[in-house]
Amino acid sequence: MTSVIKGVCAVVGCGPGMGGSVAEKFAKEGFSIAAFNRTAESFAPTEAKLKAMGAKYSFYPMDTTDKVAVQTQFAKAAADLGVINVLVYNAGGGGFGKSIMEIDPDEFVQSFQLSCTGALLCSQAVLPGMLASEGWGSHKVKKKGCILFSSATSAFRGSAKSAQFACGKHGLRALSQSIAKEYSQQGVHACHVRLDAILDTPGYQARMPEMYAANKLACTDDIAETYFAMYEQSPMGWSNEIDIRPFLEGWSC
Amino acid sequence: MTSVIKGVCAVVGCGPGMGGSVAEKFAKEGFSIAAFNRTAESFAPTEAKLKAMGAKYSFYPMDTTDKVAVQTQFAKAAADLGVINVLVYNAGGGGFGKSIMEIDPDEFVQSFQLSCTGALLCSQAVLPGMLASEGWGSHKVKKKGCILFSSATSAFRGSAKSAQFACGKHGLRALSQSIAKEYSQQGVHACHVRLDAILDTPGYQARMPEMYAANKLACTDDIAETYFAMYEQSPMGWSNEIDIRPFLEGWSC
Amino acid sequence: MTSVIKGVCAVVGCGPGMGGSVAEKFAKEGFSIAAFNRTAESFAPTEAKLKAMGAKYSFYPMDTTDKVAVQTQFAKAAADLGVINVLVYNAGGGGFGKSIMEIDPDEFVQSFQLSCTGALLCSQAVLPGMLASEGWGSHKVKKKGCILFSSATSAFRGSAKSAQFACGKHGLRALSQSIAKEYSQQGVHACHVRLDAILDTPGYQARMPEMYAANKLACTDDIAETYFAMYEQSPMGWSNEIDIRPFLEGWSC
Amino acid sequence: MTSVIKGVCAVVGCGPGMGGSVAEKFAKEGFSIAAFNRTAESFAPTEAKLKAMGAKYSFYPMDTTDKVAVQTQFAKAAADLGVINVLVYNAGGGGFGKSIMEIDPDEFVQSFQLSCTGALLCSQAVLPGMLASEGWGSHKVKKKGCILFSSATSAFRGSAKSAQFACGKHGLRALSQSIAKEYSQQGVHACHVRLDAILDTPGYQARMPEMYAANKLACTDDIAETYFAMYEQSPMGWSNEIDIRPFLEGWSC
Repeated sequence: MTSVIKGVCAVVGCGPGMGGSVAEKFAKEGFSIAAFNRTAESFAPTEAKLKAMGAKYSFYPMDTTDKVAVQTQFAKAAADLGVINVLVYNAGGGGFGKSIMEIDPDEFVQSFQLSCTGALLCSQAVLPGMLASEGWGSHKVKKKGCILFSSATSAFRGSAKSAQFACGKHGLRALSQSIAKEYSQQGVHACHVRLDAILDTPGYQARMPEMYAANKLACTDDIAETYFAMYEQSPMGWSNEIDIRPFLEGWSC
Repeated sequence: MTSVIKGVCAVVGCGPGMGGSVAEKFAKEGFSIAAFNRTAESFAPTEAKLKAMGAKYSFYPMDTTDKVAVQTQFAKAAADLGVINVLVYNAGGGGFGKSIMEIDPDEFVQSFQLSCTGALLCSQAVLPGMLASEGWGSHKVKKKGCILFSSATSAFRGSAKSAQFACGKHGLRALSQSIAKEYSQQGVHACHVRLDAILDTPGYQARMPEMYAANKLACTDDIAETYFAMYEQSPMGWSNEIDIRPFLEGWSC
Repeated sequence: MTSVIKGVCAVVGCGPGMGGSVAEKFAKEGFSIAAFNRTAESFAPTEAKLKAMGAKYSFYPMDTTDKVAVQTQFAKAAADLGVINVLVYNAGGGGFGKSIMEIDPDEFVQSFQLSCTGALLCSQAVLPGMLASEGWGSHKVKKKGCILFSSATSAFRGSAKSAQFACGKHGLRALSQSIAKEYSQQGVHACHVRLDAILDTPGYQARMPEMYAANKLACTDDIAETYFAMYEQSPMGWSNEIDIRPFLEGWSC
Repeated sequence: MTSVIKGVCAVVGCGPGMGGSVAEKFAKEGFSIAAFNRTAESFAPTEAKLKAMGAKYSFYPMDTTDKVAVQTQFAKAAADLGVINVLVYNAGGGGFGKSIMEIDPDEFVQSFQLSCTGALLCSQAVLPGMLASEGWGSHKVKKKGCILFSSATSAFRGSAKSAQFACGKHGLRALSQSIAKEYSQQGVHACHVRLDAILDTPGYQARMPEMYAANKLACTDDIAETYFAMYEQSPMGWSNEIDIRPFLEGWSC
């Protein structure tokens, strides 16, 4: 584990899945990690790994849909660890599987808030610091920040019984594009990552043992390599939308 | 004006623009009109035209983001006019022009609620009646209902300063697809109408006189013909997504 | 059958399926029909119907991938019937079902030529006449022509074993957009029609009797109504891309 | 320069731009390079760099639209260097800027052949070897090959005066999806790279000095890093479609 801290990576939704894998990868590369979960419990598995690596990290309990909480906790994180260079927004709403007639409008909006409003609030919390920062890279143009949104195929199409989840993820994609188009010229790189798969997390391994045995779950550690590759892209050629799926995933659109 | 009532068309957002033109067209074709606006004032111009035509119509004040109001007012409309065969959802959120840092999260959610939650609530209000209805058409398969969502190019891409509006319209498209995929097999036709233009409404004529003079505003009466054509499509071949733009509109994607 | 000829509709690929249904619909509405097929045999069923209707029509044998043939035969048609106001390009390549390793490059290119080069050649043949014509419609802006491309879901995605067919249809969509963007401002309306279904033609009825019995084949007569609705759209709000599918068709993207 | 050869990377269209940068990057990482250009002259600048690096490489003159030439030259390359693990297809047709009426149908087809048929032929030439190879990676599932298609925004939309170029690139995207969907399950990774920019090549630097000075041309060396990142992705989560653009590029869709 290198002792050189290269920067600060904020991970919102840093549980034992995609968020945890990203946190470990960036820590391995010398980043300090600011982790934001609703509860410390969900951060515990990642914390154990970061501790074992000797990584620098800090945890902030936060409801990502609460503007004041987001502003407060990100300000704390920047004070503790320094300007946040990378934001990985990894929280998302639920509701997959509900028929149109079953959807409760309050839960519908909560799902949107988790998938999309939270992503807006966290972006608002990090953008000023990124824009004011020195940036990095060997080009005369510096990269000032990198915002990665963990999204899904439901950002690209609604399906029978996916409306609640899909409306939030569609919104997230629109937000990602809007941020990219407004801030690219100032050196901030936004990228919407379509995770077109069920992820190999402890939860899904337990719920879908046959899928896991058949190599059909996507490996979050491997995907974290691609997140890091996005961070490494230069302003002279970066990606704003990528898809990621495992080799056995059916890909229809 | 025919005295034969062919069915009931509900128009949510029935002001002097797209909604008004749709109401007139369906009235002209023999439909009775159930109009839903927040206030009677915004319905007044359309009401005057419907009255002059001798059309059958009824107005229901309604906040389309309020579940109880929507259920109550649609129940009244069905009691007054009969089962609703066609729903045109024409309400939508604002926020176009706001930078990411200017967006207020409460307004962000309100905008989503108007563009998307309201569309869900109104769909939930009409679907059971449609599915239970006799349907129409000469095929052995009957068409049971038609739901048309007035949407925008912002359903397809976010832009700098469009996030608030675009997140709601992206959600609306996901909702439209979800409804189409869940209910098509039962005879309900859902269609997302991408209105890729500034509409020729009294408001925009006043605000953009040079655009109007240059024939650059889309004609809502003409577009209402296409809404009616969607209603007329049979279950053996209907459209779920169409775009509409005037001939001078730049079309980038 | 009205004796008033409203205009001339050219149908390329005027066999007993989509092309035939379009020809009948436009004839019923008072158009004279210019039909172009490789052989008179494939036109025979449609010819019988047009004759029975008392429609005005003329047939031109043509290989749609042969530039000279296309120029010659369209010139003849215009001389015989008058300026062509509507072009429906309904020819297309094959190759659906071939694995990548099975594709013969010559057939691959022939398939592209039928789906895409032919559409270019026919568009080149009609555009000058359309642009020079008087146009129609009640707006001060006249509509000068309407070009409708019969396409498929394979214009939107490649699939395992669809490459040969999909490459041509993808090209057709690009062509349709290019024509729309170049000529809209001059009053020519181009529309890409995604036929997301197996069509109810005599051939498919015979090959897929159980699909037909189950109402899963799309009705070409019904779809022809939508083609005519596209023709009727005004320059103040027309569609450049629509999809059409029957109610039982699975819709994945 | 490492002396360990990690594999063989074939670059079709290996001139002093994207192809050259990819060749250098893979050579730097220990790959031997099989370069295919129509003429040795266009390979000369890259050859000089590979020689200076001490890289192992071989050049094969080839018309990528000629089936026999492609089969012959790829067979030679495999005999000379070993099984080809990575194919980068970097050739493409021209015609950008031509109006619909200016397009010559023969050039139209040639452009398609360069952008799309050539990509098919090269894929057919490498797939059997990839599938029969041992593969690489630490997972129990091995990655057997990686095919990267250099494409463009014209794969996503046609524009006024882009039809000739866009039809070929649309076809290329369909081909890439078809290959991905057919061969992913066997371990072959296909990725369509949308290069949404003018590239910083010697030719464009000369033609667009003000664009270059303003940092508006995309850096091919930087982009080559992303090509390599695609190669490195594991079968448990890889990307089939990515976009790449420089920070000053306008992004409309």
